[in-house]
Amino acid sequence: MDDCIIVRYGEIALKSDQTRKWWNKTLLENMKDCLEKNNITYSSIDVKLGRLIVYTKEKKEASIALRNVFGITSLSPAVRVEADFEKIKDKCLELSNNKGKKFRVSTRRITKEFPMTSDKVNGALGAFLKEKLDLEVNLTNFDFEMGIEFLDGYAYLFTERIKTFGGLPIGVQGKVICLVSSGIDSPVAAWLLMKRGCQVDLMHFKVTEEGYKKYTKIKEILQKFSYGHEIKDYVIDGVPYLSNTKQKLCEKGKDKWMCIFCKKRFLQEAERTCNEEGYLAIITGENLGQVASQTLKNLVLLDSTVKVTVLRPVLTYDKNEIVGMARIIGTYEISKEKEPKCPFTPNYPMTSGSAEELHNIEMMIWD
Amino acid sequence: MDDCIIVRYGEIALKSDQTRKWWNKTLLENMKDCLEKNNITYSSIDVKLGRLIVYTKEKKEASIALRNVFGITSLSPAVRVEADFEKIKDKCLELSNNKGKKFRVSTRRITKEFPMTSDKVNGALGAFLKEKLDLEVNLTNFDFEMGIEFLDGYAYLFTERIKTFGGLPIGVQGKVICLVSSGIDSPVAAWLLMKRGCQVDLMHFKVTEEGYKKYTKIKEILQKFSYGHEIKDYVIDGVPYLSNTKQKLCEKGKDKWMCIFCKKRFLQEAERTCNEEGYLAIITGENLGQVASQTLKNLVLLDSTVKVTVLRPVLTYDKNEIVGMARIIGTYEISKEKEPKCPFTPNYPMTSGSAEELHNIEMMIWD
Repeated sequence: MDDCIIVRYGEIALKSDQTRKWWNKTLLENMKDCLEKNNITYSSIDVKLGRLIVYTKEKKEASIALRNVFGITSLSPAVRVEADFEKIKDKCLELSNNKGKKFRVSTRRITKEFPMTSDKVNGALGAFLKEKLDLEVNLTNFDFEMGIEFLDGYAYLFTERIKTFGGLPIGVQGKVICLVSSGIDSPVAAWLLMKRGCQVDLMHFKVTEEGYKKYTKIKEILQKFSYGHEIKDYVIDGVPYLSNTKQKLCEKGKDKWMCIFCKKRFLQEAERTCNEEGYLAIITGENLGQVASQTLKNLVLLDSTVKVTVLRPVLTYDKNEIVGMARIIGTYEISKEKEPKCPFTPNYPMTSGSAEELHNIEMMIWD
Repeated sequence: MDDCIIVRYGEIALKSDQTRKWWNKTLLENMKDCLEKNNITYSSIDVKLGRLIVYTKEKKEASIALRNVFGITSLSPAVRVEADFEKIKDKCLELSNNKGKKFRVSTRRITKEFPMTSDKVNGALGAFLKEKLDLEVNLTNFDFEMGIEFLDGYAYLFTERIKTFGGLPIGVQGKVICLVSSGIDSPVAAWLLMKRGCQVDLMHFKVTEEGYKKYTKIKEILQKFSYGHEIKDYVIDGVPYLSNTKQKLCEKGKDKWMCIFCKKRFLQEAERTCNEEGYLAIITGENLGQVASQTLKNLVLLDSTVKVTVLRPVLTYDKNEIVGMARIIGTYEISKEKEPKCPFTPNYPMTSGSAEELHNIEMMIWD
């Protein structure tokens, strides 16, 4: 009998042979990184048909840690026994004890060498457990499910199936840089690109000490999802540029353009870093219509100030949807901590700036 | 007593006075368009604090139709009575009949002129209904909820609260054009931009008759969410360009670039239409890693071939998430209908093309 974790993956299984091998290998490396960073001892990880099996005694800790590895769709802490029906019965009896009254058995033969069909196993094992433990079989409304997966001559037995985030293994889609503030949206944006296989590094435009402190905590949380990739970050002191720009805009009565100048500068800093460090795209937490300056017109205007591709994964989420995700990720509690209002934000920000106006104002203030 | 529908909206309520007035008005117009297009008779729509009240006898039909109007967060078919406790009791007794055994009363005073507090109303009305109908009060596990909202001297009574899609009223964020195929992803992309207040028009690159037929059905479904904006569409016959390009690429042994050439052309057609017709951005159903050609590298390469902003709302969704949304929207059943495989797709599409290579191949084939 061997203690292990069954790791299931979703979209990877649908790929061509070549892609699948590469993605599988990436997932395996990321899992190893996760286990090592969390000081979890394991003896080996087997790569099987549609499954990765982690052999470890620290099943609880491993399940918790591996939940954050993208590319995994579900996990089951399990025990492996020989595919012998008597041994399976004994072990299932032990595992089913004290799990509740109503149950069902769900068998899957991933490889087909075991002679009984899945239905036969469900029936025979269900009847056995029912009698031995005085349980009740209920296929739709059950307290626990006794799961069995047959694979390469072994049976893997489990009573828990932990749903995870899915996505693709970090590393299969390339490097991007995400503009992260201390707010709710941008950490979610970074997380979403990590979920789809990108190595995400961060850039923070430091405006206040409080905002920066929140950002560093956000970075720590994001790192807990970025196994296989150590997050690098770029922190830029925004104050000199913003103070100077604010003063010049106020002098010309163009204060309301402040947010556009701020975001433009931030994007351009990121673009330079993309070109120097080989990032493929810039990620932002921009959302349509959430705050006054986040109009489609402004967004298009800002987009026109850089050549590099800008990706906006939370563009069309409603606020409550973003908050829900930030809670799951664990950044919400940090983002909502009080911090001083940005000292540069005007009372009435520009909501529909044109490229021509922007150009004229730039000419006006940088004389 | 007046039959009505209470319409609640979410993010609009958070806006500045000026924005709120404009968004409210847009929502009102869209609701009128919805009611008229669905042949629902109504006598008036009152604009109240945080609520729109539609007076109609056709409450069921109106609730179903209004669910598809973006900007609305929930609906309750209701009756309006004078804010007189005896009248409220009588009417609630009637409404609570045959709704189940366990219930709770939820009162909200939106304006405060009614003398009893919400808690007092909950208590007194709860006790009254409990006794009269032999019911059981249960605040957490109830069969029905007797809802009361006090507003401007009236009480609105309801037992149903229909959650809707939220978002922003169509028309508050500007015009965009969405590239829609017959597949699962692009209709979801269009729908998401509609949800955030954009007027979305469509462009279809016609490759097969079957695909085009599916597209026309998809357009019809999307129109049912686009109240206030009649969807305009642009259908382009893709076959001449694609046949010609395929032949030239094959001659040079560069067949695997086909998908890139196809998408590039499609984007450029959309860009021309943006410039001619004043669309602010192009929307695509592109997703990271879903099919072989949807790599971040290819996406960035394609992005560099147009100047106009490209928005990709489903970029970071997992496939099962997109399918779930397409089912809710109602386009999934159409998209999954069989159609011939695209005759131009190569066996092994390019997954990491560079701008330089693309340029060289273009030089080679368009000599």
